[in-house]
Amino acid sequence: MKFCSHCGNPVTQRIPEGDSRLRFVCDSCQTIHYQNPNIVAGCVPTWGTKVLLCRRAIEPRLGYWTLPAGFMENGETIEQAAVRETAEEACARVRNLSIYTLIDVPHISQVHVFFRAELVDLDFAAGPESLEVQLFDEADIPWDELAFRTVGRTLECFFADRRVETYPVRSESIPPLAQPAITRFRLRPADNPSTSAQHL
Amino acid sequence: MKFCSHCGNPVTQRIPEGDSRLRFVCDSCQTIHYQNPNIVAGCVPTWGTKVLLCRRAIEPRLGYWTLPAGFMENGETIEQAAVRETAEEACARVRNLSIYTLIDVPHISQVHVFFRAELVDLDFAAGPESLEVQLFDEADIPWDELAFRTVGRTLECFFADRRVETYPVRSESIPPLAQPAITRFRLRPADNPSTSAQHL
Repeated sequence: MKFCSHCGNPVTQRIPEGDSRLRFVCDSCQTIHYQNPNIVAGCVPTWGTKVLLCRRAIEPRLGYWTLPAGFMENGETIEQAAVRETAEEACARVRNLSIYTLIDVPHISQVHVFFRAELVDLDFAAGPESLEVQLFDEADIPWDELAFRTVGRTLECFFADRRVETYPVRSESIPPLAQPAITRFRLRPADNPSTSAQHL
Repeated sequence: MKFCSHCGNPVTQRIPEGDSRLRFVCDSCQTIHYQNPNIVAGCVPTWGTKVLLCRRAIEPRLGYWTLPAGFMENGETIEQAAVRETAEEACARVRNLSIYTLIDVPHISQVHVFFRAELVDLDFAAGPESLEVQLFDEADIPWDELAFRTVGRTLECFFADRRVETYPVRSESIPPLAQPAITRFRLRPADNPSTSAQHL
């Protein structure tokens, strides 16, 4: 943020009176611009023993598999956001949603919330942000090709909980990925933390 | 939002290509400015059978009672936000947090998340945003003087669940307050929806 969205003059970073955090503040109109975490909402859509995954057609993590999920919008509930994202990414309708995992990802200021949900029918297809959409049995989940750790963690919990037929709501947090070791001799492009940060 | 926070030029509202929602878009640098819901995190701090409430020293709802809660900040988990807000508003330390209520308030694009929590000690006091802080037994809760409906709903659930000693995680949403009837003869200041919206 460089300019005030209210008056268009430059902003500076300082701690406002009575606050304890650095904020972007407009020295012309005095507006304080707060920046807060975003919610990503998604589903674990099931059909019998199978789970629906989408292969991403967009960055970050193009080509990797994910549960249908995306940023919650103003004016909707978390559940409505999860249903909408499932419709947009997998052209699928879901019902009987139950809140399931809440995973904090504080290093990117996000909270990922997944609901268990039943597919209404088998009439699904790749939406514009997906390359393909497919039902997977547990044994076939492409664990090494999942887009985000919150998706992997939610699927892990789901299959473990299914064995005991109890699905407690799980609230956890995910730490930053360990930074790759920097060798004394060379720093390859793959060692660039901004690339690995896309894995969340 | 009137100006682009990236380049300082005016923004206009339109639906970007591939999107379905009105966004603020900068026609100079093409930045799309997304606006998303905020998370409010708080605690139900308990000491034996009593619950700690704070009387608000600031608007909205100055003078009304609330559970300690406030906006989650970038870089923290929801639980850390709840602990921090309890420290700031009630100068109180809590432990053994369990996620409890998630209440969508879509008409103001907020999600309120409350944790059950135990007070570590009785060393609490009003922080700068509170007039007073007090422990209440269920019979003494000032139900008609609560600041926000999400606080009332969380307390209702808490006391009901306590009777059966089971605290399921509750995910619900709260609709807008009914608009006051507009009479044919006069529109009092109290009928201004922007005032009643502060009750959430």
